[in-house]
Amino acid sequence: MKTYLDCYPCLLRQALSAARRAGASENLQHSILLETMEDLSAFPPNSTPPQLAYRIHQQVQKLTNNIDPYREDKNQATQQALALYPELKKKVSESSEPLEMAVRIAIAGNIIDLGVAESYDLNATLQRVLTQSFAINDLVSLRNTLARSNTILYLADNAGETVFDRVLIESLELPVTYVVKAGPIINDATYEDAVAAGIDQVAEIIDNGSNAPGTLFDQCSDLFRKRFAQADLIIAKGQANYESLSNSSAPIFFLLQAKCIVIARDLGIDEGGTVLKQQDMNSFNT
Amino acid sequence: MKTYLDCYPCLLRQALSAARRAGASENLQHSILLETMEDLSAFPPNSTPPQLAYRIHQQVQKLTNNIDPYREDKNQATQQALALYPELKKKVSESSEPLEMAVRIAIAGNIIDLGVAESYDLNATLQRVLTQSFAINDLVSLRNTLARSNTILYLADNAGETVFDRVLIESLELPVTYVVKAGPIINDATYEDAVAAGIDQVAEIIDNGSNAPGTLFDQCSDLFRKRFAQADLIIAKGQANYESLSNSSAPIFFLLQAKCIVIARDLGIDEGGTVLKQQDMNSFNT
Repeated sequence: MKTYLDCYPCLLRQALSAARRAGASENLQHSILLETMEDLSAFPPNSTPPQLAYRIHQQVQKLTNNIDPYREDKNQATQQALALYPELKKKVSESSEPLEMAVRIAIAGNIIDLGVAESYDLNATLQRVLTQSFAINDLVSLRNTLARSNTILYLADNAGETVFDRVLIESLELPVTYVVKAGPIINDATYEDAVAAGIDQVAEIIDNGSNAPGTLFDQCSDLFRKRFAQADLIIAKGQANYESLSNSSAPIFFLLQAKCIVIARDLGIDEGGTVLKQQDMNSFNT
Repeated sequence: MKTYLDCYPCLLRQALSAARRAGASENLQHSILLETMEDLSAFPPNSTPPQLAYRIHQQVQKLTNNIDPYREDKNQATQQALALYPELKKKVSESSEPLEMAVRIAIAGNIIDLGVAESYDLNATLQRVLTQSFAINDLVSLRNTLARSNTILYLADNAGETVFDRVLIESLELPVTYVVKAGPIINDATYEDAVAAGIDQVAEIIDNGSNAPGTLFDQCSDLFRKRFAQADLIIAKGQANYESLSNSSAPIFFLLQAKCIVIARDLGIDEGGTVLKQQDMNSFNT
């Protein structure tokens, strides 16, 4: 997905938010805003939002000398999600459509995103996503693709969301490789966040070799690129994975909430929509 | 009020919004974003938000060759408000506290602000502001000041809000001079907007000699500055007037809704608060 003009003010807000979470002084926050505006002005217009976000959040990490400004937020999100885990499992086991319920739960967890917004209401979101109609619903295709696949490559998004992913992984009857970031960026899940959510008990965990948001191939390891190229079925969670992979001709199912108007418009749906979208293999080039 | 760092992304969003309302192409919108980031980087940090907004919206007017991007929005807002006028008058006449009701109505009309947000829900706001407690309530002081004043200088804010102001003006028992902008800026009321709201039937209308948002003295006419300096009682509507006059030692009552977190924090209240605030004459220098 291209970077829309609406992304500029949003990325500037994100830089300020990250600077504050990193404990920057008022003066340093101001310097970071100036630096971010320079970055935004210099970037090629055909960049994707995760490419810009990567640069901007890396700058904040460097200028604040804080490699992981979202660490505390990530730990809290995981704990909050783990407290919900038994209830989520019960919802799946009691559902007449356990796969659909588990998919909805995984998408609900995508609200745990500190890039798009400053805060979120997890319980209200859960209620909403478990009951509202899908804005895009490729569940039938997902079932069919699952039936003919041997393994699943699952691209994680945020810490805490990991617990919701675990519920979905436990509902799938195939071996799953869970792909996290190689280092901290925003509140994206790293190895330790995945383990804290118990993912190590249900899937192989690898990192993609990069600490960029989404999946930026030029930043990723050869190993990850190879796994991606060979995958039968890829589940890609969250906005940044959609933004970076929407032009990739791979067997991807995107699971996300359209948490801002920009991505909603790109998908042709209303803001807040629940999305289970199969990549259209015929429309794109790698 | 100083410009807080949160104002930077908001002003960038405003520039984009104004560019679109002015009919700018995607390319021109991009250029305007770049120009705005340059402006934001170059401004002295002790500027007030209306000083920055003035520069930015003037640039949009110039670069799009559209002197009044909000004209259609302003006309619609006035028509929408005029349709509510009979109901608003009835609320005042049936109220056991007509002055308080008229003040609430004038504050409710302050939601008609296309700088702070992209849209608003006038009916929902009216319901809320007419019933919720004031976050700051200097109504007793306002009554006392009204009792010992001969005239009122009423600093207008937005087109459409003018109709709500008219209801308050009709509830006051003193001659009112209604001060509008000398030219278009955002959706601020100009002479023609005031007349369209029927203000000419209930008050003298003057302009402040400037088309800056709020009240920037260095941009205003000598005539307006004289009227301001001599005023017994000044009613200043909206965020921009608060932002530009919060350090002025004048007999001002600010009537506004705290529509963003920045102004809410500056006032020490929650976002969305209803404010009738008397200027603290002892705390400030002109």
